[in-house]
Amino acid sequence: MSNQKLFNVAVVGATGAVGEQIIRLLEARNFPIKELKLLSSARSAGVKLSFKGHDIVVQEATPESFQGVDIALFSAGGDVTKALAPHAVEAGAICIDNTSAYRMDPETPLVVPEVNVDKINEHKGIIANPNCSTIQMVAALKPLYDRYGISRIIVSTYQAVSGAGAKAINEMLRQSQEVLSGNPANPDILPVGSLPVKHQIAFNAIPQIDKFLDNGFTNEEMKMILETKKIMGDESIEVTATCVRIPVVYGHSESVYVELKEDFDIEEVKTLLANAPGIVLVDNPAEQQYPLATDAAGKLETFVGRVRRDLSNPKALNMWIVSDNLLKGAAWNAVQIAEYIAIEQ
Amino acid sequence: MSNQKLFNVAVVGATGAVGEQIIRLLEARNFPIKELKLLSSARSAGVKLSFKGHDIVVQEATPESFQGVDIALFSAGGDVTKALAPHAVEAGAICIDNTSAYRMDPETPLVVPEVNVDKINEHKGIIANPNCSTIQMVAALKPLYDRYGISRIIVSTYQAVSGAGAKAINEMLRQSQEVLSGNPANPDILPVGSLPVKHQIAFNAIPQIDKFLDNGFTNEEMKMILETKKIMGDESIEVTATCVRIPVVYGHSESVYVELKEDFDIEEVKTLLANAPGIVLVDNPAEQQYPLATDAAGKLETFVGRVRRDLSNPKALNMWIVSDNLLKGAAWNAVQIAEYIAIEQ
Repeated sequence: MSNQKLFNVAVVGATGAVGEQIIRLLEARNFPIKELKLLSSARSAGVKLSFKGHDIVVQEATPESFQGVDIALFSAGGDVTKALAPHAVEAGAICIDNTSAYRMDPETPLVVPEVNVDKINEHKGIIANPNCSTIQMVAALKPLYDRYGISRIIVSTYQAVSGAGAKAINEMLRQSQEVLSGNPANPDILPVGSLPVKHQIAFNAIPQIDKFLDNGFTNEEMKMILETKKIMGDESIEVTATCVRIPVVYGHSESVYVELKEDFDIEEVKTLLANAPGIVLVDNPAEQQYPLATDAAGKLETFVGRVRRDLSNPKALNMWIVSDNLLKGAAWNAVQIAEYIAIEQ
Repeated sequence: MSNQKLFNVAVVGATGAVGEQIIRLLEARNFPIKELKLLSSARSAGVKLSFKGHDIVVQEATPESFQGVDIALFSAGGDVTKALAPHAVEAGAICIDNTSAYRMDPETPLVVPEVNVDKINEHKGIIANPNCSTIQMVAALKPLYDRYGISRIIVSTYQAVSGAGAKAINEMLRQSQEVLSGNPANPDILPVGSLPVKHQIAFNAIPQIDKFLDNGFTNEEMKMILETKKIMGDESIEVTATCVRIPVVYGHSESVYVELKEDFDIEEVKTLLANAPGIVLVDNPAEQQYPLATDAAGKLETFVGRVRRDLSNPKALNMWIVSDNLLKGAAWNAVQIAEYIAIEQ
């Protein structure tokens, strides 16, 4: 990216779990930055964060924060995006939003670069970053969709606590130590911070991520269902999701059953996956090699394994998809979008 | 069970995780026992175990151990069953086997009492106890099968380490403490004790339970597929399984997608489940109530929740099934079978 335009970049939610990863990625990727503005709530303003060896003081995010900003990366919650992104757009910034605020807005592209990078240019100021559990699944399914078509997806997730933020990580580690010491877990945050009932996550599996809707699905499950159709650009894909939180720190795992529209050769499927951008095939049962959350943590790619022909449906196959939910599932997908914008300009 | 015949009962594998639960259940259920014989490998022989306030010395299991035994409960591994069960049968004992040795033998009934109790009487000396992950699923699906028929099941499991024995529990707890202390996990046992590659189970999800077959499925997954058809007595049911070990001590959870043969009313489904033997419906999303492994641990029932109509297939529904894998998934199902035998005689 030498001899290239430099950008004024703002990170909104700079002190959060995803914001922190965004800053590290902008640094590691040597993103063409003129000035980096770190923004947060009033509560965290004044904190100093390091970027390329320099300290940057975090400022309170306000409607006036975006003067001169070219690219603003939002990950401070849907309410903050709704309150501030329109001001950022008015100030001329392109917003890459990691919240659910604009994902299903028909005017807003919902982008996973490996799947629908062409949608980036259709933006009207805001580009939405999909839900973490959706991103890794569509990235892995895209090569199969292009070759065979997909009629149905049934997914069950094994999601890391980091998806619920830094407090949930601390909660899970604290509970684990309590239980190992013979004490009660005293759950305080999960499954949903804003709801009254808390459940133990240490040494447990909680089949609730986000709030329930009247149809019995959770918001997280509906995100997987609706966002998959929008990102793939195909409302005919039938999707069922069950989203479960398990005691893992980083890395969402997914058990995915896929029905294709055409007959397939399972070795060709593996080759397509091995050659797909952003995908690493880890699939050698004889050597007990398959993707693991602990291996995916800290990596940018999406890892796919356990690829096998279904025994009951000749057009179906099963797979196991793992990725770091804070990276490809959030910060890295957002920075990837920012890199495409930078290259285009 | 007063004024009833008393039985000479043998527990083979008395010092193991399941054997221990069998002894506790025989005690708690006040099983009509004349003499209780506790058997194990030569290594554990001599250990004293308590039963109803008395110590019983564990003896080495040999072909001669079964003289006078009426009911022998085996849970010492498939090899032990294959070596000793024929001798027990010859000595006149009815064997209830918790291993996979005879499960798919056409001559051997494979029994979950809530599903096919009538098969018990067809035994020729051996009655097989199904795999833990299969038992809780078929127990929960039986009322739906009877009312609507079932064409397809797609299940992803969240299985506790206790399913791999007491050593795996210790391994997971030890690894958890190591990781919390900032040390490497040093995996030593899981996923499969007899295979060379070991993976960290603490704060991870391992998509391998038992060995892989050439078709890419594991033995555990094939057990769920084949045993479900046999127990339901319906080879036409299509089953797909992905079996995953997670860092939970007791209690397997299962995300199950079911296609029924007939249209259904979701409230009727919940009523059928609530009234089914051995099933507890825990399904109140508004109050964040659903089955949890930590709640199921130590209980005899199978807990079902997250029951919801599928959004893409009008004949399908989704559910979350949880049960204690050492109890309903092993020891309790075996003792239930023993109770039916005792009542019949």
